[in-house]
Formats: sequence, C-alpha cells, structure tokens
Amino acid sequence: MRVLGIDCGGQYTGFGVVEQLPDGELVYITSGAVRLKTRDPLCERLLKVHNELRALIEACHPGVAAIEEVFYASNAKSALKLGEVRGVAMMTAAACGLPVVGYAPLAVKSAVVGYGRAEKTQVQAMVMRLLKLSAPPEPADAADALAIAICHLHTAATLAALER
Amino acid sequence: MRVLGIDCGGQYTGFGVVEQLPDGELVYITSGAVRLKTRDPLCERLLKVHNELRALIEACHPGVAAIEEVFYASNAKSALKLGEVRGVAMMTAAACGLPVVGYAPLAVKSAVVGYGRAEKTQVQAMVMRLLKLSAPPEPADAADALAIAICHLHTAATLAALER
Repeated sequence: MRVLGIDCGGQYTGFGVVEQLPDGELVYITSGAVRLKTRDPLCERLLKVHNELRALIEACHPGVAAIEEVFYASNAKSALKLGEVRGVAMMTAAACGLPVVGYAPLAVKSAVVGYGRAEKTQVQAMVMRLLKLSAPPEPADAADALAIAICHLHTAATLAALER
Repeated sequence: MRVLGIDCGGQYTGFGVVEQLPDGELVYITSGAVRLKTRDPLCERLLKVHNELRALIEACHPGVAAIEEVFYASNAKSALKLGEVRGVAMMTAAACGLPVVGYAPLAVKSAVVGYGRAEKTQVQAMVMRLLKLSAPPEPADAADALAIAICHLHTAATLAALER
C-alpha cells in the first residue's frame, strides 16, 4: 500500500509518499513541500498547490491520501487561510480518484512516536528511523507529511490485524 | 464585460453571471447554487464545487471571477470550513484562466444598494431591479453571487470613469 501524506500550511504545504511492503517494512518514496510566495495572488498560490500535488500523484501513484484534521486555529483569519489550502489539497486528491482520510494531530504523534504530546523534533527523529533516512527530511513540513502517511499505514495495519 | 460572482458557503455556494453591455446596461446570464449534502465526504463535496464551477465557466465564458472577501467568522471551525470551499472556488477560476478579484461584504452592499449596512432583502430587491428580474433569484445565495458580480462591474466602471 502506497500513501500520500499532506501537511497543509499557508506558506509550505508538505507532502510525503511512503509505501508499506507486504512484510510490513516501510519504504520512503519521496517528500518535499509546495512553497508559496506570499506576494503572489492567493488564487495563483492555490493553483500551484493543485498543480504540484496533481503532478506528484500522477508520478507516484499513491492509493490513498492522508491529511491532518484541524479542529482549532489561533484565530478565524488563520483558520480561513489554512482552510483554503486544505480544501484545494483534498479536492485535488479526490479529483485524482484517491480516497482522503483525516487524522487528528494527536493520532499522528501517537502512531509515529507512541505519545500524543510528542515534540516536533521527536516526530522528525522517529520518521527518520522508521524510514531509514540518513538525514531529516527538509523542510520540516515534509517530515510532518511523512508522519501523517506513516500514521495511516500504522492505523490501517492495526485495523487489518483487528479484523483477523 | 462578463463577470462570474461567487458566494461561498458550507452548504450552498451561490454563483451568478452578469454581462455589462457597452452602454452600461446589465444583463442577467444565469445564476444558481452548488448544493452540498453534508452527509457526503468533504473531499467529494469540494470536488463537486470544482466540477460545477468549471462546467459553468466553460459554458458561460466569463472574463473575470469576483468573490467575497472574508475577514471574520463566528469561530475558527466555521472559518476553516468556509476556507475549504473558498480555496477550491478561487483555484478553479484560476485554473480556467480567470483573474479573481475579492470584495469586502460592505463594498458589495454599498455598490448594489448604496448603503454598506443594507439588509439581505434590500440586496435581493436591488439585484432584481438592476437585472430586470420578475422574481428573486433562488436560492438566496444566487442573489448574493449576482450582487458580487454587479459590485465588480460597478467598481470597474467607476475605476474606468476615474481614469478618463
């Protein structure tokens, strides 16, 4: 199973693709971030997110997209901005035929580090270890996106084990 | 000049297309709303907004999209939901090659009714009068979208007059 994790943000939208082999081993495929220039018109920034995510999906063929659920934001303005990017990311995955699954930030940290209140650096270190990377994925948003993909794989594996 | 006005909402996203003839007369082209079922997965709802707006743009050939700016929301959760739809609407217009212009709610009411604190019913009545409609556009979101399109035409006309 190959999973695209997406970590939405106003300036950087991280992405990471992880494959799980039949024996359970996790394989790093790619990661990075769509970088948006705040001086570009908003509609062009959103179109860039759409175009880059679509190109990534067409190149890597993930079978599912995993995205962080957002339940709060520091204020309505930042929630609106985050929502704009998040809406485009979800719609793009759906337009490419991918099911989209959301995970709470606590669930992502629990699945990757084993502790819902883990620090960002702990998540990055665990992502490196689980994917056998020699350096932390750059930018940090890419590591977050890989963590979301790993969360989906761990959750899917748990659900499959429960079913058996 | 032909303008697509878009009024984003979580359940109904209104749209309205208005053309201004060289003599300044406003002509109603079409209006309506994308209706979203809250029981459908979010990504499918967002894809529906994208597909229906794209089909509308391809059918009506507007030269510009006008959308309401949002500066506040009752809470971060509703701002996030509104942002998701708004991001998809803006990205769709940009993907179809349209410039996207934003107007504050006060500017829309001022441009249509001449009074920034006008009631919703006053806006609807003025939209009917300006576009010579025999019945109010349904649903109300369609009337709001037409008002945004009229706002753009009035503002563009004002800017052109100032330049002359």
